[in-house]
Amino acid sequence: MTKALITKLKGHLPKGAVLDLPEQLHPFECDGLSAYRETPLAVVLPETTAHVQTVMKLCHQAGVPVVARGAGTGLSGGALPHAKGILLSLSKLNRILSIDVDNTTARVQPGVRNLAISEAAAAYGLYYAPDPSSQIACTIGGNIAENSGGVHCLKYGLTVHNVMEVTFIASDGEQLTLGGTCLDASGYDLLAAMIGSEGLLGVVVEAVVKLIPLPESSTLIMASFDEVTVAGEAVNTLISAGLIPAGLEMMDNLSLQAAEDFIHAGYPKSAAAILLCELDGIASEVDAETEIATQLLSQAGAKQMVHAKNAEEKNRLWAGRKNAFPAVGRISPDYYCMDGTIPRAQLAFVLSRIAEMSAETGLRVANVFHAGDGNLHPLILFDANVPGELENAETLGGRILELCVDVGGTITGEHGVGMEKINQMCVQFNDRELEQFHRLKAAFDPAGILNPDKAIPTLHRCAEFGAMHVHHGQLPFPDIPRF
Amino acid sequence: MTKALITKLKGHLPKGAVLDLPEQLHPFECDGLSAYRETPLAVVLPETTAHVQTVMKLCHQAGVPVVARGAGTGLSGGALPHAKGILLSLSKLNRILSIDVDNTTARVQPGVRNLAISEAAAAYGLYYAPDPSSQIACTIGGNIAENSGGVHCLKYGLTVHNVMEVTFIASDGEQLTLGGTCLDASGYDLLAAMIGSEGLLGVVVEAVVKLIPLPESSTLIMASFDEVTVAGEAVNTLISAGLIPAGLEMMDNLSLQAAEDFIHAGYPKSAAAILLCELDGIASEVDAETEIATQLLSQAGAKQMVHAKNAEEKNRLWAGRKNAFPAVGRISPDYYCMDGTIPRAQLAFVLSRIAEMSAETGLRVANVFHAGDGNLHPLILFDANVPGELENAETLGGRILELCVDVGGTITGEHGVGMEKINQMCVQFNDRELEQFHRLKAAFDPAGILNPDKAIPTLHRCAEFGAMHVHHGQLPFPDIPRF
Repeated sequence: MTKALITKLKGHLPKGAVLDLPEQLHPFECDGLSAYRETPLAVVLPETTAHVQTVMKLCHQAGVPVVARGAGTGLSGGALPHAKGILLSLSKLNRILSIDVDNTTARVQPGVRNLAISEAAAAYGLYYAPDPSSQIACTIGGNIAENSGGVHCLKYGLTVHNVMEVTFIASDGEQLTLGGTCLDASGYDLLAAMIGSEGLLGVVVEAVVKLIPLPESSTLIMASFDEVTVAGEAVNTLISAGLIPAGLEMMDNLSLQAAEDFIHAGYPKSAAAILLCELDGIASEVDAETEIATQLLSQAGAKQMVHAKNAEEKNRLWAGRKNAFPAVGRISPDYYCMDGTIPRAQLAFVLSRIAEMSAETGLRVANVFHAGDGNLHPLILFDANVPGELENAETLGGRILELCVDVGGTITGEHGVGMEKINQMCVQFNDRELEQFHRLKAAFDPAGILNPDKAIPTLHRCAEFGAMHVHHGQLPFPDIPRF
Repeated sequence: MTKALITKLKGHLPKGAVLDLPEQLHPFECDGLSAYRETPLAVVLPETTAHVQTVMKLCHQAGVPVVARGAGTGLSGGALPHAKGILLSLSKLNRILSIDVDNTTARVQPGVRNLAISEAAAAYGLYYAPDPSSQIACTIGGNIAENSGGVHCLKYGLTVHNVMEVTFIASDGEQLTLGGTCLDASGYDLLAAMIGSEGLLGVVVEAVVKLIPLPESSTLIMASFDEVTVAGEAVNTLISAGLIPAGLEMMDNLSLQAAEDFIHAGYPKSAAAILLCELDGIASEVDAETEIATQLLSQAGAKQMVHAKNAEEKNRLWAGRKNAFPAVGRISPDYYCMDGTIPRAQLAFVLSRIAEMSAETGLRVANVFHAGDGNLHPLILFDANVPGELENAETLGGRILELCVDVGGTITGEHGVGMEKINQMCVQFNDRELEQFHRLKAAFDPAGILNPDKAIPTLHRCAEFGAMHVHHGQLPFPDIPRF
């Protein structure tokens, strides 16, 4: 059965497009969440939209799962292969099809790297704003699957705010277009549902993204604080004043020390926390905003402030933040990166609770995050060689995500649910809401062949996880298709 | 059958909540698109979420259609009653439940008027940004149904960008919550699908909206032009420079003359077009932006520029724009307001094509619109007492919308599809895309009782309209439920 499918795929696709030798499959076993590994039946590398249609039609006929993959930089296991399925790598669909300078958009294939769009648009004074930290490697297709963010999404929005149209191949091989190249599209807003759907609804083969003018000027302020909570309040002070920095990042003492030792960015190692506040736009505006931000940070209790005097100094100050994860990797054998989001005003409370949990478990936690958005990235430090520490780290991670939900937040900011956080989805949503998600899935992929077992837990799984009530052994809504 | 339902509704709801006398039903016959009228079986006025659940459960059992209605200001007939259905007026669910000053959000019921949110938030220096021209009367529930925009959505976004969470009653009476009060929600983005779904997917009973700080300062520049196309290019010049005005509106000669004669706003009556450019934010930023906008407008060919010197002058200049529709009403017995959106760079071309079509048909067209967004509002002037003129106006309106689609645009910017533009949906979408919309509808409302026959045309309807190919008398996808 599966052999027949692979033979058919080889027959319909160019030589070399179907890989099925063990040594060929090995590099595709995992994505950025390498704790989970699986070998797919085969890896298929389409070169055209028509190839993607062929793969979907054949797999649909055979009832074989398909997992789409971009660059494999995802951190939640969304591109983990299915043992009985095809891994569809879109890396060869990597062309920028056109740049429309007048309407400031680019039409791209899914395998184009995030940064490559900005590099191509630079000739016209434009760029693509969302900038996940993996932007040099990650692809726009993966960004769409995960609704990726980045340092600048406070001002410029997430992927969902910067993609105007997608063309995708449905699970049955049909091609559809959602959204459009202007302000609003008529019909239901299924474009937003597709963005962040982690490959469960369709395979994106083309996207139109917004480009924006490169800012004439940009500057960076680093402000240090004696208390983490005071730094958290300073974030609110800035935003409540109507200022929208291009980026507003926070690092706590553990992460800034690690970064300073690694990069020598010029961070004050004794500070409880620092904020990095980037302002960009037209030069005279940036000057005006810098003055106001400086005043507000000072009023909010900043102890020391450094204003980048030139691009070099700005890049050096940013380098500490951008290398914070590898820097933490230098002070701990292993770390586990979480991704929860909370209402901004809960920052101080949540940071103090994380500190308490860290003390209780004996596991150090370094906090590096998009403060302006309330998007936390607690890094839990552990040693996988110490028996039980990995499990303890995972448990602490789960508790931190549940804390995020408790204060009105969510279990993911920009990394997605994938395999990693599927149990926490049971905490976030009730049975009827999960059911609605399954109904949406069925509306796009009735056979359930696209990326099965990811992102949206079955009600059975939630019942096992213990977060849902099962009445008299019966799950609710027995009439709905389940995946 | 329907009598039994009405008796049941009366039994379950407070006295006066169910209206079924002809004189009681009369005021609910139409919304803002008064060319379409229908009398519902009954009007129900729930006072609580539990009442809405009761109505939905009873109607679901009886298989009776339900049309939800806010203030009835909609311009596309989305709240037109169903002759065999219940009209569910949410006007008594009109409380602001809470304002969270720290997280800058408000939790509101659907019957709260748009402007009432900003009035309540003003005490905290905050406001709700989307401002449809009906904002004094229209409700947030209606805004959510239509994904309403307004003058300021260029900078601050449409309703979909300003609503963080909705709680709705599904067609079977169950209550669900979509979205959340922070940056991003996990799971599929069904919140966006709900916003703008014109009452077809559920009845919103509660929403959390974003509030933003009232700008410290704002100013207005009026610039006049000798050619409409030059004004169109000036819009691109401003935005390409990285400026995002709070509002950027355009009026052509016919509309500015009508407004000037009515309001005496101070518009130059000989100008081919004017732009109104509002800049807001922190005072020093607004000063910097004003200087730049002035330079750019001058370079782009503005003949005359007026800078509002104070709030009074600003309000006077805005008053002409805000009263443009009634002003046009003074120079023509009737007018038909269109709402199409185009990629911004197509402004000049589309305006010249509209002028040609106007000349061909002998019907005058006044253009007043959100230029920065490419959201056109051509007003087609006609006299309903002249036989054939209404039909000619409707035909011209349809042709203008099809022109919008031809240049890569869409048939609605902010008014919705409703009854008015349902045929043009056949032009905008192909059969497989419409099918996907019907599948989404079935995932939310399998029985098809919510606002039937609106917004999304059946494939049969499109076949009759002639925009779709029917092969051998067979419609595609015979296995999908149809509404």
